[in-house]
Amino acid sequence: MNKNFLGAFTESVVNVLSTMATLEANPGTPVTKENEKAHGDVTGLISMTGAEAKGTFAITFTEKVILEVTKRMIGEELSGIDDTVIDMVGEITNMTSGGAKKLLSEKGYRFDMAIPTVISGKDHIIRHKSKAPIMMVPFDTEAGNFFIEVCFEE
Amino acid sequence: MNKNFLGAFTESVVNVLSTMATLEANPGTPVTKENEKAHGDVTGLISMTGAEAKGTFAITFTEKVILEVTKRMIGEELSGIDDTVIDMVGEITNMTSGGAKKLLSEKGYRFDMAIPTVISGKDHIIRHKSKAPIMMVPFDTEAGNFFIEVCFEE
Repeated sequence: MNKNFLGAFTESVVNVLSTMATLEANPGTPVTKENEKAHGDVTGLISMTGAEAKGTFAITFTEKVILEVTKRMIGEELSGIDDTVIDMVGEITNMTSGGAKKLLSEKGYRFDMAIPTVISGKDHIIRHKSKAPIMMVPFDTEAGNFFIEVCFEE
Repeated sequence: MNKNFLGAFTESVVNVLSTMATLEANPGTPVTKENEKAHGDVTGLISMTGAEAKGTFAITFTEKVILEVTKRMIGEELSGIDDTVIDMVGEITNMTSGGAKKLLSEKGYRFDMAIPTVISGKDHIIRHKSKAPIMMVPFDTEAGNFFIEVCFEE
């Protein structure tokens, strides 16, 4: 996969969490999601289609981490993944993909954004059905770790 | 939502299961997914974007039902949601959305297809983050019930 895609989403998620949650997110080494077995409790997912490329972005949190992120975003301590948390994950997904779209437009890629989806459920797994490689980036934060997945076909 | 969208996916999923699994699927009454609390064990999800509209299609099965569908598709009895089942759900998603795209093109709607995603995990929930209504259609089959969700913005 063109490294522009991964770079744009990595940069964008760092910006979004810094702005929305005053949370510093440090990206780790990207890995190919070969075994496709990354688990999480809540995932924001959005597809992008364009003439030059199409792809999917996912951001996955454990319950513990998203509750801390939500607390920093809205100043409220929640006890589980409820509608407020789902909305926050939807917002993070929208803002991150919007930011990445802007960064990619500077590289000559134009995209239409699809409708974002949020998946909740203890320990679920997401698989992107594409021949393109699926790259996963772990992030380290004070609130704990989370990861993003980026899969783009040119 | 324009009833063309719901009709196209309903017709297409009936065709796909009849062809691929020799399974007759009888659509029930469509309902608005107001509480957004439909649960399943495996979901195929795909987004479509176009100049006239954009939307998301999801098809959700319980483990029991998808194992029976898979048995009919490949003639093999599987004991749980493994990679083979995930691939089958990806295929059903692709074929259903491809069929719906064709039906909708006859109504003047053109779409680009995004990369399909399959979500697995006991009792997960999918929420489409759109202001457009989310329509859910239950299907009754010999293998048990399943449902689809369609959410389109014009």
